[in-house]
Amino acid sequence: MLNIGVIGCGAIGRDHIRRLHDLVPGAEVVACADYFQEAADKVAAQYGIRAYASGEELIAAPEVQAILITSSDDSHAGYVLEGLKHGKYIFCEKPLALNAADCEKIIEAELKHGKRLVQVGFMRRYDRGYAEMKRIIESGELGAPLMIHACHRNVSQGPGFKTEMGITNVAIHELDICRWLLGDEYKSAQVLKVRQSSLSNKGYDNPQIVLLETQNGCRIDVEVQVADGYGYDIQCQVVCEKGTINLPDPYAVVKRANATRSFPILTDWKDRFIEAYDIEMTEWVKSVENGKLTGPSSWDGYVACVAGDALNNSRGKGVFLPVETIEKPELYR
Amino acid sequence: MLNIGVIGCGAIGRDHIRRLHDLVPGAEVVACADYFQEAADKVAAQYGIRAYASGEELIAAPEVQAILITSSDDSHAGYVLEGLKHGKYIFCEKPLALNAADCEKIIEAELKHGKRLVQVGFMRRYDRGYAEMKRIIESGELGAPLMIHACHRNVSQGPGFKTEMGITNVAIHELDICRWLLGDEYKSAQVLKVRQSSLSNKGYDNPQIVLLETQNGCRIDVEVQVADGYGYDIQCQVVCEKGTINLPDPYAVVKRANATRSFPILTDWKDRFIEAYDIEMTEWVKSVENGKLTGPSSWDGYVACVAGDALNNSRGKGVFLPVETIEKPELYR
Amino acid sequence: MLNIGVIGCGAIGRDHIRRLHDLVPGAEVVACADYFQEAADKVAAQYGIRAYASGEELIAAPEVQAILITSSDDSHAGYVLEGLKHGKYIFCEKPLALNAADCEKIIEAELKHGKRLVQVGFMRRYDRGYAEMKRIIESGELGAPLMIHACHRNVSQGPGFKTEMGITNVAIHELDICRWLLGDEYKSAQVLKVRQSSLSNKGYDNPQIVLLETQNGCRIDVEVQVADGYGYDIQCQVVCEKGTINLPDPYAVVKRANATRSFPILTDWKDRFIEAYDIEMTEWVKSVENGKLTGPSSWDGYVACVAGDALNNSRGKGVFLPVETIEKPELYR
Amino acid sequence: MLNIGVIGCGAIGRDHIRRLHDLVPGAEVVACADYFQEAADKVAAQYGIRAYASGEELIAAPEVQAILITSSDDSHAGYVLEGLKHGKYIFCEKPLALNAADCEKIIEAELKHGKRLVQVGFMRRYDRGYAEMKRIIESGELGAPLMIHACHRNVSQGPGFKTEMGITNVAIHELDICRWLLGDEYKSAQVLKVRQSSLSNKGYDNPQIVLLETQNGCRIDVEVQVADGYGYDIQCQVVCEKGTINLPDPYAVVKRANATRSFPILTDWKDRFIEAYDIEMTEWVKSVENGKLTGPSSWDGYVACVAGDALNNSRGKGVFLPVETIEKPELYR
Repeated sequence: MLNIGVIGCGAIGRDHIRRLHDLVPGAEVVACADYFQEAADKVAAQYGIRAYASGEELIAAPEVQAILITSSDDSHAGYVLEGLKHGKYIFCEKPLALNAADCEKIIEAELKHGKRLVQVGFMRRYDRGYAEMKRIIESGELGAPLMIHACHRNVSQGPGFKTEMGITNVAIHELDICRWLLGDEYKSAQVLKVRQSSLSNKGYDNPQIVLLETQNGCRIDVEVQVADGYGYDIQCQVVCEKGTINLPDPYAVVKRANATRSFPILTDWKDRFIEAYDIEMTEWVKSVENGKLTGPSSWDGYVACVAGDALNNSRGKGVFLPVETIEKPELYR
Repeated sequence: MLNIGVIGCGAIGRDHIRRLHDLVPGAEVVACADYFQEAADKVAAQYGIRAYASGEELIAAPEVQAILITSSDDSHAGYVLEGLKHGKYIFCEKPLALNAADCEKIIEAELKHGKRLVQVGFMRRYDRGYAEMKRIIESGELGAPLMIHACHRNVSQGPGFKTEMGITNVAIHELDICRWLLGDEYKSAQVLKVRQSSLSNKGYDNPQIVLLETQNGCRIDVEVQVADGYGYDIQCQVVCEKGTINLPDPYAVVKRANATRSFPILTDWKDRFIEAYDIEMTEWVKSVENGKLTGPSSWDGYVACVAGDALNNSRGKGVFLPVETIEKPELYR
Repeated sequence: MLNIGVIGCGAIGRDHIRRLHDLVPGAEVVACADYFQEAADKVAAQYGIRAYASGEELIAAPEVQAILITSSDDSHAGYVLEGLKHGKYIFCEKPLALNAADCEKIIEAELKHGKRLVQVGFMRRYDRGYAEMKRIIESGELGAPLMIHACHRNVSQGPGFKTEMGITNVAIHELDICRWLLGDEYKSAQVLKVRQSSLSNKGYDNPQIVLLETQNGCRIDVEVQVADGYGYDIQCQVVCEKGTINLPDPYAVVKRANATRSFPILTDWKDRFIEAYDIEMTEWVKSVENGKLTGPSSWDGYVACVAGDALNNSRGKGVFLPVETIEKPELYR
Repeated sequence: MLNIGVIGCGAIGRDHIRRLHDLVPGAEVVACADYFQEAADKVAAQYGIRAYASGEELIAAPEVQAILITSSDDSHAGYVLEGLKHGKYIFCEKPLALNAADCEKIIEAELKHGKRLVQVGFMRRYDRGYAEMKRIIESGELGAPLMIHACHRNVSQGPGFKTEMGITNVAIHELDICRWLLGDEYKSAQVLKVRQSSLSNKGYDNPQIVLLETQNGCRIDVEVQVADGYGYDIQCQVVCEKGTINLPDPYAVVKRANATRSFPILTDWKDRFIEAYDIEMTEWVKSVENGKLTGPSSWDGYVACVAGDALNNSRGKGVFLPVETIEKPELYR
């Protein structure tokens, strides 16, 4: 049994605790913490586990063997660095940090251990659809990949959501999955401003269009919406030399009624990749038991942040900016 | 120019007149008639053509070279026989007659002319979807056909609509298209009673299930609904030894909105096969000009009636009844 | 931890062992047995568990708390009765028995315990598609259910497969899921012979069409194929008064290539409902831990057998036969 | 009857002649001409019409009331100007001219007549899918339009096809249809270079990505491929504030075989919008008879050329270039 402590008892935190408790063999959630003590206490009572007064105390606790970080985005990097100090395995929800500089610190700290300790929550890699797309691309049956057309649409945006977060919190999933699908790295990036949707908050750029060019010359466009008014809708098409492949829409009952043939679209992001989350956690626990992480690494979290920074810097400039990373350490090859 | 007289100025009649006038080269509607004189007068005024006091007068008029019958079902056989007396080309909307006996009279009358003069309005044969299905079946690429699963659903039923009409007026399209698709003839038939839908009139059997067996042993099931509450929906799947083929849903814009991905379903039967109707009329006029009819014949109208009679006779009996026709005259081979 | 012994180390047995081992929290497979000793030994070696010389010994072993029966169909009833003798929890793959009489013995034996001990492997009830269909039907939003059109198609048939097994081993899934979806019971049943597919073994009736009528007057048709030549394809449409709902095709990457837009169809039945199997096992283990079974019961296994017997008896008779069960014991309500 | 002379007897020319002859009431093709005299002679013999030695002679012939230009792209502008000299109605296939300057000359010449004489062959406006999309956008039910994602893919490229022609001959359909759908005008444009597909000719940029910004701030991206290796595939999604709408894939029989559910994709561009071509010609002839053109105008042909020029000028520059037109004459409002 792997004893896990969870920092952050919000929606995604509670969902992961339920998942680890109900569905993941070999996992035992033994501790939790939250910025709001009551949130942690409530979860602790529900599961009969211990609530710690702070993430740092939880990390230091001897009973905690591995740490799951699902706290607010701005606290991720700090907890990861703290966890690394204690040499513990860490699963950190995306983003790994708010900017590339903090990711570099994490990489530096992890390198000292000479082994991977950190996994980042890019769960889409565990989705059967994306995995099959990668398999087809790598099989070469459709020739080389040339382009990706993607979109990431959320129903509505929370208060305080800033334009930059459309990139660093939302499109970051595409920033990871596109390079993973292509087996390629980014060369340049640009974000385009679009006529503002009246469903989005005043002063916020929504939608945005993300444009990326890869080292191999592939082009990627991602429509990013934080208030599309209709659903949580993730689309991805990879165009290869001989054909295209599309991420499927979710498995959903078809209805014919009211002069309409219809398929439901999910509205809660937690449901869209629920099976991927289940596999992600099961695989993470198994890989920790084996002492060898296999999921998305600090490096993956770092590259997504570098691309995100380039995109946010490009806003309003009308040109592509370079996406430049430090040299990739041997550990992540 | 082919001078056409139209008997019956209801919905389908007016639709065909518009079609012949606007879209069919070589056709000229010169006359009309209707049981309700005002209906004929209105159409006559709109198109600047002559309204006759009766179908019989229209048929006899020298200016009328060909006759289009779109009057009420019970009057079809009479007008067809009258047209045959005058040796004129006749396009008769389905059904050719209310029963097999009347169809036999028509065949007898037509045979005396030694050539085909009558075409029946089984327009689905001109639909690109059904035509492609027939092409695939006949190509043999999927092996021999084994079964057809079909459904014919109307939104709502008119007043005075009787259970038998669900077969003779509604399912009659399937009675024609299935044997045409399979290149096979019916051997036996049975209709099944289903729990009554509360959307249908009291005392009326709706839905009904039509079961047919062909000479080659193929099985056909057709769900027939005259009040499905949601749309005019025609489905047809042919199951062959190595695979299946389906009639497509109509060409229709896909919408994503309100947590739903949706395709509109038509509600008016006139729209579902509108392109097939256009082709049907164009081909009919062309074949009359060539002096050699190529569309569905009196024989096809007759066989559909024979099968319909067997189905209506089987109601409540719990067994399959034979579908027995007279010998097929050479003219229709 | 629930210590489970598995009888039957064939394809489905090994798949369930892998599942229990890798994915089901709280489950531990501790023993196995197989008619072919080597099969059991091989599995035992792979998982480091004990292979018993017979199912009976495994059932009697004190270390075995619950029994999973995945042996050949004709041995199911015997092992279930043996397990009941020992008062152990039993999960039995479908069919519960080869005929209704054996099911009645099981029910009798289970009733003596005053509680449910047996669950039958009708995993489709755990599929998200079927579950959503049931939810929609029961919500009443589409009015009362009227009909089910279904098909069950297997790629190819094994040697020695008999016509009757198309019902008792194949269509049995539909015999369970249809009454579950409708919340209704069968009244009569008839199987129709179809032109034989050349892909099926000589002398075997394939395809077959299953017709069922329910107490409420609903009609069900199920196309059953054991050698369709193209895939493992399960379709189900429920027609309600105001509309229809369809079981979705599986989540699958869409490809555009070679002048074709295509979706893969699975060919291995183990993959089609893989998520349902995962949930089924997880829920079963949980319900055993809670001491209260919630999944498909002996009664459900019995009713499916009764309907199957009626269907097999009806073959060639040309009429519907009644589906008659004993009175439903309180335990199963 | 409208007597039509056709200049250009290549694929599209012959297709239009067939269409006018077989399907368009009120049209009579009376003359043809082609740069290759034999091509014209062959068509003339087939239809029993007169072949002229040159386009100019055909245009001048008194028997020719209206001119259909389907010759090579570089000859379009010359013939249109010649036709305008004679004050005849002209239908010119796209593009109206090779560049904006020539279009301006045409506009100038047409303005002297004080009425529209020229229609440009942007047949997609007659497609039922695009028409329905425009209806939905204008209905406002989905809020304001924000973006268009489109792609235009051809199977293979002809010899001598230059990079610029990917814009002026291929993407020109999107350059017309997008502003028509949005009821908006272009503000700036940029073309992006993509990793070259090995299926395209050496030295040719394929694929290309067209980016457009409209006066209202909408963003448009169009993937342009002249050698996609799999089919003639036209996609278009309009993203509005509350949802999206997609151009449907063509009406096509669904097949289940060989472990695949598949829909055919057309490979010949003449088939994709065949119904739109039929309607286009029928409507053109009708509008000429009425003396009032209603289809795409010289202005529409001009704007498409202006946007195309901006795109071709932007190649390799890495920035958006302005799309600037002359003031729109009253005649085209």
